[in-house]
Amino acid sequence: MREVAVIGVGMTKFGELWTKSLRDIFVEAGLKAIDDAGVDHIDAMYVGSMTPGLFVGQEHIGAMMADYLGVAPIPAVRIESACASGGFAFRQAFLDVASGMNDIVLAGGVEKMTDGADVTYALSTAADQEYECYQGITFPGLYAMIANAYFEKYGASRKHLAMVAVKNHKNGALNPNAQFQSEITIDDVLNATMVADPITVMDSSPVSDGAACVIVTTVDIAKKLKKPIVKVLGSGAGTDTIALHQRKDILSLEAVRIAGERAYKMAGIKPSEVNFAEVHDCFTIAELCIIEELGFAPRGKAGELTEKGETSLNGKIPINTSGGLKSKGHPVGATGIAQIVEVVEQLRGNAGKRQVKNARIGLTQNMGGSGASSVVHIFTI
Amino acid sequence: MREVAVIGVGMTKFGELWTKSLRDIFVEAGLKAIDDAGVDHIDAMYVGSMTPGLFVGQEHIGAMMADYLGVAPIPAVRIESACASGGFAFRQAFLDVASGMNDIVLAGGVEKMTDGADVTYALSTAADQEYECYQGITFPGLYAMIANAYFEKYGASRKHLAMVAVKNHKNGALNPNAQFQSEITIDDVLNATMVADPITVMDSSPVSDGAACVIVTTVDIAKKLKKPIVKVLGSGAGTDTIALHQRKDILSLEAVRIAGERAYKMAGIKPSEVNFAEVHDCFTIAELCIIEELGFAPRGKAGELTEKGETSLNGKIPINTSGGLKSKGHPVGATGIAQIVEVVEQLRGNAGKRQVKNARIGLTQNMGGSGASSVVHIFTI
Repeated sequence: MREVAVIGVGMTKFGELWTKSLRDIFVEAGLKAIDDAGVDHIDAMYVGSMTPGLFVGQEHIGAMMADYLGVAPIPAVRIESACASGGFAFRQAFLDVASGMNDIVLAGGVEKMTDGADVTYALSTAADQEYECYQGITFPGLYAMIANAYFEKYGASRKHLAMVAVKNHKNGALNPNAQFQSEITIDDVLNATMVADPITVMDSSPVSDGAACVIVTTVDIAKKLKKPIVKVLGSGAGTDTIALHQRKDILSLEAVRIAGERAYKMAGIKPSEVNFAEVHDCFTIAELCIIEELGFAPRGKAGELTEKGETSLNGKIPINTSGGLKSKGHPVGATGIAQIVEVVEQLRGNAGKRQVKNARIGLTQNMGGSGASSVVHIFTI
Repeated sequence: MREVAVIGVGMTKFGELWTKSLRDIFVEAGLKAIDDAGVDHIDAMYVGSMTPGLFVGQEHIGAMMADYLGVAPIPAVRIESACASGGFAFRQAFLDVASGMNDIVLAGGVEKMTDGADVTYALSTAADQEYECYQGITFPGLYAMIANAYFEKYGASRKHLAMVAVKNHKNGALNPNAQFQSEITIDDVLNATMVADPITVMDSSPVSDGAACVIVTTVDIAKKLKKPIVKVLGSGAGTDTIALHQRKDILSLEAVRIAGERAYKMAGIKPSEVNFAEVHDCFTIAELCIIEELGFAPRGKAGELTEKGETSLNGKIPINTSGGLKSKGHPVGATGIAQIVEVVEQLRGNAGKRQVKNARIGLTQNMGGSGASSVVHIFTI
């Protein structure tokens, strides 16, 4: 396999982008990434998107985005793994370059969620329609069950969830691309409207529009372009039962653990060598479970780690320096790529007020559904 | 890049499979392919599907199918490029194995179209929603415009379209997995209900359920397994404007031409060296245009070639020996993989009554929308 690097990144602001269409926002992010990389062409393209068919009545967006980005007739295809679509799109771009098939590849992600579709229904198609959704449960309810089981087993409380939201908003307030650039308090979360006990609306990531793109090439080509080279050290992916109730343990995110293990193995590093990470905090409880699966906290201790400030910007292992899904926003197909945009900006030392000190190794973890799919990448500069 | 081979194939019967769900049919095809390959595990999986979200309310089917096939936690992801989703899923499996990331990979395709969804709307999401569908046009109308332009420019007629349908039904009548196993006449096509002049219902592929899967590995591993080895000689993909009216020439399927050129170049062969091909006859006019773009007929001469019987089972270049989309059926996401199933069966000499003599090199061509994306693979034994 050829060594692979990221040489360009670009994203739109995340939020309610009512004046821009699906194609507009993808092209905006794509042009920024191409400009940042300083390349004069791309050879292939992967577009992560969860359900543009249900959100805006448009499928076939690999070809459409190649057309509107002005790069047709290059090969272009859409990659879907629910909310992990962006992360998997990056993985396919990585494999494409690593294989020797193409030299310069764009991996992007996009979603337009605020154009009037039934968002809860559209998102519920990431769960098991026959055995979960038809019975009346959607994602806040699924994560609420995980949270209650977590509280029961480890003695954590709603305050620990709230601390995740507070930290991520604090980071998001420093990110000009974030949907919510405002700090919040523990009480704001605890007193917010309950969605599915114990998950309040402030424990939940928002409904967002947005796009993000990165340019991937070989390390050899990157050197010739004289760009800051962010190397891809490892790529891991995994799957689990699509229905939460079919797992041996609903607190165990097997797909995350396995994706992490594979990425660590490929990178040849241990979790303790990671300096910072972007993880999939679709709900606050998810961040706690994920950082345990990735080896950043012992089992049941993620709340404590958060409480001690170790996952904050100046902590031992800063988590979601971008603001995460909670504060930066969660246009589902774009999220996995936006995580990589943040890690690249941090490794380049370009993250401004939210810059992590001595950022040498960064990790991204993107997840679909209640954890039925996950993908992890590890980067270094 | 490592040399890649197909060592197992499996598919369901195509048709109205009302007693089986989306997951049932994928698993049926997957188990057949795994059994055919004789492997005891797979390392990763790619699932081509156009719009399970709109057809049956289920996205995230990469993870779901890994779960139901009993192969989780392997990496699994869905690939979408409208009706070319299956062909692109195969291409990703090919790249995965070629890159060295995984050794034994399943590429599958599935669609469940007859469960009550608005099929015309769901399929129209492969066209440009804003500039085509919202103006009232859907695919029969788009292909009708291509057909009328073709008639005008080359002097072909509805009889030439009908000959494609007659030939493909003749082949499909010999295929136990085909949706329609009955021969038809020229008059049956000419007198059928008009959908969009000159396209009748008998010029159109049907609405179908079905799944198909293949197992891909390296040539080296295939040799050790002592299975018939069907080598992948070439893979090419291309894109074009998503909207038909934006092309310089609506008779030119640039994505098909480019995908073909790339596949021929990689395989190191000329079109004249191909012995038979499966092409994307979603409407009869498509088959004529495609075999010209692939170099099997001079421009404007595909109708004449068909009339002479050169694309029939015993002709110079048999096209759609399986019955094609027209007669075998067109569960959109499954089609690209089912084409590969047919080519593998022919190359192995297992195609029964529809066996092509001296089948040494076979080609598959899969297409999305009105030609905005296309993917071509070339195989040999």
